[in-house]
Amino acid sequence: MKEFWSKRAKALTPYIPGEQPRERKFIKLNTNENPYPPSQMALAAIREAVGESLRLYPDPECTSLRETLAATFGLKPNQVFVGNGSDEVLAMSFQAFFDPERTILFPDITYSFYPVFADLCGLNYREVPLDECFGLPVEEFLGNNGGVVIANPNAPTGRALSLCHIRTLLEGNPDAVVIVDETYVDFGAQSAVPLIDSYPNLLVVQTMSKSRALAGLRVGFALGNADLINALNSVKNSFNSYTLDRLALAGAEGALRDGAYLRAIAMKISSTRDCTADRLKRMGFEVSDSAGNFLFISHPEVPAKTLLDGLRERGILVRWWDKPRISNYLRITVGTDEEMEALCQALSQLVAKE
Amino acid sequence: MKEFWSKRAKALTPYIPGEQPRERKFIKLNTNENPYPPSQMALAAIREAVGESLRLYPDPECTSLRETLAATFGLKPNQVFVGNGSDEVLAMSFQAFFDPERTILFPDITYSFYPVFADLCGLNYREVPLDECFGLPVEEFLGNNGGVVIANPNAPTGRALSLCHIRTLLEGNPDAVVIVDETYVDFGAQSAVPLIDSYPNLLVVQTMSKSRALAGLRVGFALGNADLINALNSVKNSFNSYTLDRLALAGAEGALRDGAYLRAIAMKISSTRDCTADRLKRMGFEVSDSAGNFLFISHPEVPAKTLLDGLRERGILVRWWDKPRISNYLRITVGTDEEMEALCQALSQLVAKE
Repeated sequence: MKEFWSKRAKALTPYIPGEQPRERKFIKLNTNENPYPPSQMALAAIREAVGESLRLYPDPECTSLRETLAATFGLKPNQVFVGNGSDEVLAMSFQAFFDPERTILFPDITYSFYPVFADLCGLNYREVPLDECFGLPVEEFLGNNGGVVIANPNAPTGRALSLCHIRTLLEGNPDAVVIVDETYVDFGAQSAVPLIDSYPNLLVVQTMSKSRALAGLRVGFALGNADLINALNSVKNSFNSYTLDRLALAGAEGALRDGAYLRAIAMKISSTRDCTADRLKRMGFEVSDSAGNFLFISHPEVPAKTLLDGLRERGILVRWWDKPRISNYLRITVGTDEEMEALCQALSQLVAKE
Repeated sequence: MKEFWSKRAKALTPYIPGEQPRERKFIKLNTNENPYPPSQMALAAIREAVGESLRLYPDPECTSLRETLAATFGLKPNQVFVGNGSDEVLAMSFQAFFDPERTILFPDITYSFYPVFADLCGLNYREVPLDECFGLPVEEFLGNNGGVVIANPNAPTGRALSLCHIRTLLEGNPDAVVIVDETYVDFGAQSAVPLIDSYPNLLVVQTMSKSRALAGLRVGFALGNADLINALNSVKNSFNSYTLDRLALAGAEGALRDGAYLRAIAMKISSTRDCTADRLKRMGFEVSDSAGNFLFISHPEVPAKTLLDGLRERGILVRWWDKPRISNYLRITVGTDEEMEALCQALSQLVAKE
């Protein structure tokens, strides 16, 4: 009906997240979750926070968590913003830094929430085509833009961008904020965090959902110069003073204290990814170089949709988009070695059958 | 500097929440938290959810929690929307239902986040003056408005509105959404939930933060006809697919299963409120009739700011606004009987001294 909807609401085409099955037990390789449990230090910190104090509001400034993040990344607390997952941090960044009068740019193949955020804010955007190998044509992003949004490594392709190219983007857009979405950075790309003190227009966004195995806790954060962080605080405090609950604050801090565990599981996942990529290539798949915790694959003969359905019948969920240029690709999360074994066996059956 | 801020961000005047002290131990009567602990059923449900599954995203549709809320309120699950605190639910409602072309109305004295939400959405609003006793002039809210937002009971006054008046508001605004913010309803006002099936333009917003003693968990919800709820889902899925984490979902469900505890603590708080109000009146205070878990008081001789500072020196935090019409009032959260005893003793010293 949409009888009482605002014009803004009527014009939206919401993002569709990957399926979260409630019943049948699947091998879940569709939403880039971490196959390993969260750090025991995170779980212990949460358990300690479950009690009477939940009757009290959380610290709206998330001071302790921001201090811990600042120490982790060698920054000051006023260079850190935290939010309810990196999606919220990104949505607020679009509100805080971009204006309808100046077109913002992002690649045609990237995280599909970016155009949705732009629509919600009434922004104009241009989707710059990636090259044939899904590489970023850096020079196309330079000039008098209203802003640039880049995922590094990119999703769903997994392709990483060098710090040298990030510098070029920052220097080529001196009057606009460049958002580098580092959701998957811990699995093999170079972080732009060391550039923050040199580039006042750089905002790096990261999350606890992937490498830190806390997708269920909803904690994301942005790192950048204090003036950018202040803008995010203004937007946040005009929307919801308390975006992080006490348990998320506690769990995130616990996870940050366990850097050794993060490195161990990220390394394990990267190694499983590379072995799986080799095996899939030997089976005839085209596999793009991935620096994320996922693979982006295509088969020269069997359509991706056929593989998607065949995997689902075999109890394996992966991600597919019915979109130009990528409709013959699957994005497959890197799970445990056992899950990858099951995946490869299923794919080899599906490829042989045709 | 605001060098890279969007025009929207530059124009914001963010909401300022009440202080959440991190160090010194205060009697905290400044943010309307519940003085009693959350339900044991809520805490047990959270403890059960702390574990490996935190590596997985939560259910983005919050199906189980919405089903439990629907059962609690005698509605269908598609009449229920949940969000990260009622502030987020309200912010999304302003985006989903109101347009810049049609002025929305709310009282001049009410929850001070409403004008902030309106500014964030670029909406035009008119603040309708309450009468001398802080009563709502219902007839002033009727007509061709773009929307109406009413807190019932109102904050910070505590004044409740009858269902009859809510009906008049709904019938007098047939082409606009009327949001009834029932944050404090469980402490003594009549809920408009029974009107939902009769009025497609009614949206009721409630929270787990007050009567259910879970301010630290960040769960709010909206109840209304399915078409309104769909609009909220569109906005939410254009902003952040996963606004509630797994622990908040679990805790909220646990709390809802413990209706007896909710009623017991809400009744206890209402009774403490009424006793405290009587005592303060005997001490010479003007105390407005409150149906919330707070009192709104003024003294004929001692300025509210003097009382605020004096209470703080004595270790008691209350809330004061330097705003027209209410700058000689304090809003005081109803705590335990012991906390109210300490409050009354401190106030009686402060009043006697002058």
